[in-house]
Amino acid sequence: MVSTVEDAATRCVTLPASPVLKASLKRSLPPPMTLGVSEALPDEIPLDSLKAVLPSLENGQPGHVNGNKSFMLGKNMHGSSLEITEPEHDDEVTGEKDAYMASVLARYRKSLTEKTKYHLGYPYNLDFDYGALSQLQHFSINNLGDPFIESNYGVHSRQFEVGVLDWFARLWELEKDEYWGYITNCGTEGNLHGILVGREVLPDGILYASRDSHYSVFKAARMYRMEAVKVDTLLSGEIDCADLERKLTEGKDKPAILNVNIGTTVKGAVDDLDLILKVLERVGYTEDRFYIHVDGALFGLMMPFVKKGTWDLRYIRKKSLSGEVHEAPKVTFKKPIGSVSVSGHKFIGCPMPCGVQFTRMKHIHCLSRNVEYLASRDATIMGSRNGHAPIFLWYTLNRKGYRGFQKDVQRCLRNAHYLKERLREAKIGVMLNELSSTVVFERPLNEAFILKWQLACQGKIAHAVVMPSVTVEKLDNFVEELIEVRKRAFPDGRVEIPCIVEEVGPLNCACSLHRGSPTFQAVTTPVKGDWRVPAPIKNGKSISGA
Amino acid sequence: MVSTVEDAATRCVTLPASPVLKASLKRSLPPPMTLGVSEALPDEIPLDSLKAVLPSLENGQPGHVNGNKSFMLGKNMHGSSLEITEPEHDDEVTGEKDAYMASVLARYRKSLTEKTKYHLGYPYNLDFDYGALSQLQHFSINNLGDPFIESNYGVHSRQFEVGVLDWFARLWELEKDEYWGYITNCGTEGNLHGILVGREVLPDGILYASRDSHYSVFKAARMYRMEAVKVDTLLSGEIDCADLERKLTEGKDKPAILNVNIGTTVKGAVDDLDLILKVLERVGYTEDRFYIHVDGALFGLMMPFVKKGTWDLRYIRKKSLSGEVHEAPKVTFKKPIGSVSVSGHKFIGCPMPCGVQFTRMKHIHCLSRNVEYLASRDATIMGSRNGHAPIFLWYTLNRKGYRGFQKDVQRCLRNAHYLKERLREAKIGVMLNELSSTVVFERPLNEAFILKWQLACQGKIAHAVVMPSVTVEKLDNFVEELIEVRKRAFPDGRVEIPCIVEEVGPLNCACSLHRGSPTFQAVTTPVKGDWRVPAPIKNGKSISGA
Repeated sequence: MVSTVEDAATRCVTLPASPVLKASLKRSLPPPMTLGVSEALPDEIPLDSLKAVLPSLENGQPGHVNGNKSFMLGKNMHGSSLEITEPEHDDEVTGEKDAYMASVLARYRKSLTEKTKYHLGYPYNLDFDYGALSQLQHFSINNLGDPFIESNYGVHSRQFEVGVLDWFARLWELEKDEYWGYITNCGTEGNLHGILVGREVLPDGILYASRDSHYSVFKAARMYRMEAVKVDTLLSGEIDCADLERKLTEGKDKPAILNVNIGTTVKGAVDDLDLILKVLERVGYTEDRFYIHVDGALFGLMMPFVKKGTWDLRYIRKKSLSGEVHEAPKVTFKKPIGSVSVSGHKFIGCPMPCGVQFTRMKHIHCLSRNVEYLASRDATIMGSRNGHAPIFLWYTLNRKGYRGFQKDVQRCLRNAHYLKERLREAKIGVMLNELSSTVVFERPLNEAFILKWQLACQGKIAHAVVMPSVTVEKLDNFVEELIEVRKRAFPDGRVEIPCIVEEVGPLNCACSLHRGSPTFQAVTTPVKGDWRVPAPIKNGKSISGA
Repeated sequence: MVSTVEDAATRCVTLPASPVLKASLKRSLPPPMTLGVSEALPDEIPLDSLKAVLPSLENGQPGHVNGNKSFMLGKNMHGSSLEITEPEHDDEVTGEKDAYMASVLARYRKSLTEKTKYHLGYPYNLDFDYGALSQLQHFSINNLGDPFIESNYGVHSRQFEVGVLDWFARLWELEKDEYWGYITNCGTEGNLHGILVGREVLPDGILYASRDSHYSVFKAARMYRMEAVKVDTLLSGEIDCADLERKLTEGKDKPAILNVNIGTTVKGAVDDLDLILKVLERVGYTEDRFYIHVDGALFGLMMPFVKKGTWDLRYIRKKSLSGEVHEAPKVTFKKPIGSVSVSGHKFIGCPMPCGVQFTRMKHIHCLSRNVEYLASRDATIMGSRNGHAPIFLWYTLNRKGYRGFQKDVQRCLRNAHYLKERLREAKIGVMLNELSSTVVFERPLNEAFILKWQLACQGKIAHAVVMPSVTVEKLDNFVEELIEVRKRAFPDGRVEIPCIVEEVGPLNCACSLHRGSPTFQAVTTPVKGDWRVPAPIKNGKSISGA
């Protein structure tokens, strides 16, 4: 019997439960009503995590499988892993090995289908069709070194990669001969590269980044032995420019390397680039004494497609600190920024993680080294690079184009607002930043539910990221199940709503203390046709007919 | 008209030549005999590189497209890139866009088939069949963070990843609860991780690595702001332990972080781990004052499969500095090493670059950070990780097993020896290290030939890496074409063989000064059945019937 929460967290069974496991699962579970989980329980709930979590729900004390507890490192996926066995001598005759592997793969495929169906917590667009590219799967495509310089290895996809980069050059307004970039393995590689370029340009620079920045930003500082300063954030998750100003003033003796978030990981907040530039000017940093890396992992690819001149325009207006309403700052190399990175597997959608890193040609000379072996200079982090990823990106950018992305962004933003309003109606504390499709809400009290919907959690909040693959039906199912689960967690009918005022502010918290606020009341009764309750869009068409 | 070599190098056209390009190529070429290239010219030779290279051949001065010249950075794949265009409004009706993209992909596929056919210079096994896995291509599989700790994102392949890692644990003799590792994006990530772990364990350690180490090793030192010392190499490419001893003695005040190569990039040399350990002991470094990272990118996965008790055993014997013959040092965690990395796309074969990084659990605690967002600790470099790669590796390891790898290694080593002897016969300077399938030889004088066979070059030498996908037929074609190309480069019939004695030593150089050496003479006349001329193996069976 597993007794500690840590152990349970590290022993999750991720394969679809075998018939034996299912049977044992059924045997070990008390009737649903007592348990606080209903028939909505996913098939693949880890047995051990149930054992650890569910009993505590009975006491009204939600257990946290992956809360603030620390993990036992390296323990212990071994039990659930798929062991590799030596083929038998007669395998080719009997076909036993092939049969075994086919069965493993079929089960795995089924499990992925299920997991994909319920996924809501991570900003990955799971809706893509790359069937046309399956003909390339059996080539070992490797874009060694610099994308712009031919290496001797011929099985590459540089022509696709550079096509993709040129597209981003137009988007971010940098001339073809003034930019340098490459397709990375993920958003983290973009951040690692951008910050490294910053450090090479300003070797004694101090890294400034908000505490809501992606963890890879601070990881970079540690890897690169840079001095790093954490800057406070506003409730929205946006960098607190007052605190930034204070800290920049303190560190004024040294140059500044800044990480600016276009969409923070947890709250989807957009740092105000223009305001940051003003702060730098005010404190007295000239352009040769700062370097800005823009981490646009998710929204870097959404913000440019918010359609102007329509309903959606309102979402690119935002309030500055002074309360003044202005346009959201545009990401462009016409401003003094050094690099931008975005993820490719997030908004665009891709079978494997990838991203785009983009910087000025003049900066890259600091990093580059002439590596004759590859007949190429290597200014990338990784050297060998997945040549399939650029083809996936090239394919989607070509097929969707600006108009396709505009449609996708519009649908995501509308549906995110729809989700927000449905949660408000249900008296669940919820926050949605403008320009964002990341809906932040109270962390559900049921870990099985969190695992089923694969919600990303931090402290008392969780989030759902509304990507193009998220439909209104999915959101409806999610909300209904969440309401049901919450009801069952409090069998006496008195639902205790947790206070998340510190995370989302009084206007968004639904606890007994804050839900009385006039603002919260106002929006719990949706007004049809009002912009606060935009009609959800289903497959590009508003389901209300609007 | 492109006139400089640098420009040519950076303007290679990598797509299959269009009919127009082919016609213009034909028009612009003088008859083959004058040119020094024959009908063996590949279809896709870059037009500009021909213009720049071939005329110089006419003067008997070979041009170097990618020799010691430095490159114009970031210039200029733009011309040959595949531009992304906005879809037309009526694309869905006319099917124009689909037709365009299908044609691009079909041409690209054809070009990859050709490139794959002639590839010889990089250590990638291009022979794999992952048809059974194509059913998984449409899932966005991402192994976020630590492989051993379940993240909330459900669409992952940790169970495969850990299965693969457990297999390596058996190979490298470390207990399941004592190791930590993950599937990386490439060999470079393994080196970056291993050296980072070393630095975290010994923060003021000096990095020692031979000058033949992969460039990522010195890149790591620069990224991590570590003091780094380059150690000399022997002619074989192996680290010079006498020089290492001198340098370790000089730096004795600080701990040592050592990179040990199991197969150097250019010459395929294996550093002598046991001798290095002896040197460390002699200089007085105790185990708490050094950290060894083993870069086994290619041979790390071949050496363990050299079959004992057979013909091949001779190849795992090697001479030490003192001239004494002993067994090649085995890579195992029973020795005081800190980490090992290998590439997955090299000997195993994989559609995209990947690798395995492996270290001791006790070391990884230094690196790890508790990142709640992922419900995981992140001790990896990349965070988001390609979830398809572990499945590819799992699939091959399961199907081939130890026996399959043994067969592959045996074939590669035999065929590498076959290539070496064929080149010797042709009076071409050539070197092949024991334990290695990397055949080093005089850099061919024809850049078109180098590009066709995708040879990796350094200074006056080139190499071919005999992988499981390299057949005897391919080697025969290669040698015949090389002989032909060399003959044509010297129309008067007097072939001038370049001296590469500094690169490969007097026993292996075929220039007029050195080819008279008794050793060179002895092996130019192959003796059937002698171990120096092993019968080549074709599809696992010796073609001589031996």
